[in-house]
Amino acid sequence: MATEKWVFMVTAQTPTNIAVIKYWGKRDEVRILPVNDSISVTLDPDHLCTVTTVAVSPAFDRDRMWLNGKEISLSGSRYQNCLREIRSRAGDVEDKEKGIKIGKKDWEKLHLHIASHNNFPTAAGLASSAAGFACLVFSLAKLMNVDEDPSHLSAIARQGSGSACRSLFGGFVKWEMGSKDDGSDSVAVQLADEKHWDDLVIIIAVVSSQQKETSSTSGMRESVETSLLLQHRAKEVVPKRILQMEEAIKNRDFASFTQLTCTDSNQFHAVCLDTSPPIFYMNDTSHRIISLVEKWNRSEGTPQVAYTFDAGPNAVLIARNRKVAVQLLQGLLYYFPPKSDTDMKSYVVGDNSILKEAGLDGASGVENLQPPPEIKDNIGSQDQKGEVSYFICTRPGKGPIVLHDQTQALLDPETGLPK
Amino acid sequence: MATEKWVFMVTAQTPTNIAVIKYWGKRDEVRILPVNDSISVTLDPDHLCTVTTVAVSPAFDRDRMWLNGKEISLSGSRYQNCLREIRSRAGDVEDKEKGIKIGKKDWEKLHLHIASHNNFPTAAGLASSAAGFACLVFSLAKLMNVDEDPSHLSAIARQGSGSACRSLFGGFVKWEMGSKDDGSDSVAVQLADEKHWDDLVIIIAVVSSQQKETSSTSGMRESVETSLLLQHRAKEVVPKRILQMEEAIKNRDFASFTQLTCTDSNQFHAVCLDTSPPIFYMNDTSHRIISLVEKWNRSEGTPQVAYTFDAGPNAVLIARNRKVAVQLLQGLLYYFPPKSDTDMKSYVVGDNSILKEAGLDGASGVENLQPPPEIKDNIGSQDQKGEVSYFICTRPGKGPIVLHDQTQALLDPETGLPK
Repeated sequence: MATEKWVFMVTAQTPTNIAVIKYWGKRDEVRILPVNDSISVTLDPDHLCTVTTVAVSPAFDRDRMWLNGKEISLSGSRYQNCLREIRSRAGDVEDKEKGIKIGKKDWEKLHLHIASHNNFPTAAGLASSAAGFACLVFSLAKLMNVDEDPSHLSAIARQGSGSACRSLFGGFVKWEMGSKDDGSDSVAVQLADEKHWDDLVIIIAVVSSQQKETSSTSGMRESVETSLLLQHRAKEVVPKRILQMEEAIKNRDFASFTQLTCTDSNQFHAVCLDTSPPIFYMNDTSHRIISLVEKWNRSEGTPQVAYTFDAGPNAVLIARNRKVAVQLLQGLLYYFPPKSDTDMKSYVVGDNSILKEAGLDGASGVENLQPPPEIKDNIGSQDQKGEVSYFICTRPGKGPIVLHDQTQALLDPETGLPK
Repeated sequence: MATEKWVFMVTAQTPTNIAVIKYWGKRDEVRILPVNDSISVTLDPDHLCTVTTVAVSPAFDRDRMWLNGKEISLSGSRYQNCLREIRSRAGDVEDKEKGIKIGKKDWEKLHLHIASHNNFPTAAGLASSAAGFACLVFSLAKLMNVDEDPSHLSAIARQGSGSACRSLFGGFVKWEMGSKDDGSDSVAVQLADEKHWDDLVIIIAVVSSQQKETSSTSGMRESVETSLLLQHRAKEVVPKRILQMEEAIKNRDFASFTQLTCTDSNQFHAVCLDTSPPIFYMNDTSHRIISLVEKWNRSEGTPQVAYTFDAGPNAVLIARNRKVAVQLLQGLLYYFPPKSDTDMKSYVVGDNSILKEAGLDGASGVENLQPPPEIKDNIGSQDQKGEVSYFICTRPGKGPIVLHDQTQALLDPETGLPK
């Protein structure tokens, strides 16, 4: 087998996800076991996803990986843990057409080439590691014919990046913290698929930031070590919220969903602030967006939009339906207009068909927007150009899939090197 | 007596105070009883204080009050509670020289004129109500010959504004929450006078803000009603910190004092963020000041400066000694220089003799400042002109005093009206 020159490969696509009940704090740093359950919404991979091609060949002399076109080291324990766990579960693979036959035990000796690409800027702080590790594990499992269901795979992806385990499913996903020391019961499960609640529209405001941010890995370690509120949150607050959020999702109860999503995002940031030294992920722009949404929800009497913020200043806004999303986008563009030389289609990306519905597909749309009456005061002036880099319009989306179209592969089928 | 035209008056000065273990949350809204003890440092009244003149005359036909020259209503329950409590404790007063004699029971029928003035901008958000109610109660107690010690007076001032009770003493003050329903044991006590730890230098950065702020009264009510972290803080965290802070003050242990002061400020703001809707008192400038101090403390190995923020974006910075305060001011002015047309003596007020020590009494001092080496990165650029309105340099200070110099009275001794 070692003299053959074949390359066998699989390409897959995996979504990113946004937590609505937050994961913040590990009880085991090595196995990546959390201090509480979390729940997320999977985002439509049409707008935000990772594509990964994994290849095996007897011609490869070592494991190699390229991320967004640049070779990176696989020596870190997170990659090594994922590779080891997947290899230990590898099955027999046969491709009669190409005359390839790989036995279960061959995988220990064969080397891998991995190429991964995000269809959104990594710098945007949009949980690229979640989609990345999920896609790595999913594509390797397909390549190696691993006979495990997505929940079992999620426990492997979890060892790369905690929140990656939630990207193994579409729709609404719970990461159960588990109780075993070895982490085997710390897995993701699907609560509902992406069709269950397809009214929801998600608008992400990618907020500009001057500050260097604390990585979520070191941030949550510092919170566990120093915050006197984190354990109370994990033990007393989150378990109840998890049950309430499961109910809200089951019943498509947008009012409860919003109340839980917003308060849990704020409490996560409260724990960050209670950390020593304090961690600030939200900035004044984030605060202004929260004020805008809170005021609107109050003026409507019933919640229209939920907000949530991860370990950065970006706002993830979940509108109850398309009509509300159109109004939301109008309000956002009124307060955070693009710089004058910016094309609207590069300022609102993803599903930007919403621009037409908002009457903003023309050139002069933004200047004619009126301030939402209920939020005229207290948000600051309209002069906030440049505070938001761009918006992404998306929706709840599906889980990982294999891409069978070879043109989407990131590695050359002959050489196994990046195209 | 009713036909006589005499005016009898007293003028007093009372300091403001800054909490280092925070008060946030009432268990009784009417009596203003807190959910936890708090500890404060009294600020030198030479730089921040309220002066109040109270007058009584048979010629007055109703109670009246002027605040900073403008007549205000006394009908609010907070004023009424203070006036009622003080009147019920009034004693006999005799001024033989002027031929004035007021019996204990006359106070119920006599009317009062009150004029109060802050020697700092009310808009600066520097706890003017604390100094104000403390001064009202203290000056009335002197006028009416109330035979109560400062702790008993503090329980009256508390009913005007919670933190006012701590302004009845100089130095370091504890507000004991008490346990009685009537609030009679919810009083302030002095932990140490202002001479006990006179190395400390306090620099306040008055931070510009666009946002309208949530009042502390409504903010803390909303926190009590909605934050799931507040009770845990009040019951589990603060009691231990109070004991530790008492020890730190007793031993002049600046490292412990700083650790407790900073973490407690951050936890108070964390509880605000955990409130629904969330309350943001700090802004990006506040965050930048915290980063600056945290980095400096870390680079020195041992804490040099403590920070604390009340219900607004202003930073109160406590330097361990004068030398550190000079360096701190240089760092602050490097990052937050005045606008080009601002005179340094109006940009650094209070004890601005520190400008000379910092080599900044000349015109071109600020431009020549070098960035503190350890904090060069991560704070943002130097281009922060206008983010800080001005700085106040002060120190721990003394408690209330009567001002015997009649020229300092705010009411005319003949008419009892504002001068």
